[in-house]
Amino acid sequence: MELHEKVTIRLFREEKCFGPGMAELLERVAEHRSLRAAAISMNLAYSKAWTMIQRGERELGFPLLVTVTGGRGGGGATLTEQAARLLQAYRAYQADVEAYAKAQFEARFAEFR
Amino acid sequence: MELHEKVTIRLFREEKCFGPGMAELLERVAEHRSLRAAAISMNLAYSKAWTMIQRGERELGFPLLVTVTGGRGGGGATLTEQAARLLQAYRAYQADVEAYAKAQFEARFAEFR
Repeated sequence: MELHEKVTIRLFREEKCFGPGMAELLERVAEHRSLRAAAISMNLAYSKAWTMIQRGERELGFPLLVTVTGGRGGGGATLTEQAARLLQAYRAYQADVEAYAKAQFEARFAEFR
Repeated sequence: MELHEKVTIRLFREEKCFGPGMAELLERVAEHRSLRAAAISMNLAYSKAWTMIQRGERELGFPLLVTVTGGRGGGGATLTEQAARLLQAYRAYQADVEAYAKAQFEARFAEFR
């Protein structure tokens, strides 16, 4: 395989509050409408998922999840509007920086490919 | 503290072969002219430093370190020319991608700062 780059973007305030794991967790909450089901689906302990959300909310200063009631499971969670916008901004930003990094990599590392 | 981004760049072939830890290790080898002294100076076990170098050389396909003889310590190691060029390319690339990511971050995350 050719030499290639991988770019990881994390967001911090005092502490880390958003990164690839959080983005995946929020996407799965939106899909499963439940934090527990989201955590299970990505092989993450529910307690770990819960801690990520708590820490993220504290650092970001706004709620990420909102409780939804009713439905077959008798209630669950989904993303707040702000969380959905942050997730969308993160994914677009990641794609943008990755595309830039890929183009620059090809220009700068030709000798090492 | 305001919300801010951190970008990590790793290089892979089949496996990871270069990243922030390797860059720091090579800089310290160049400074101390010894892998052991470099590892100690960054609180890294010598066995771990040695494994990083072995794996990096195997994945990259060229030697990173060259033995140097003489001097007060009776010998040591320094960077091969290719390792020095790769390190320089990585640092310049990192600064470039970080500057791009910072500018894009400010444009895209104003709402969440």
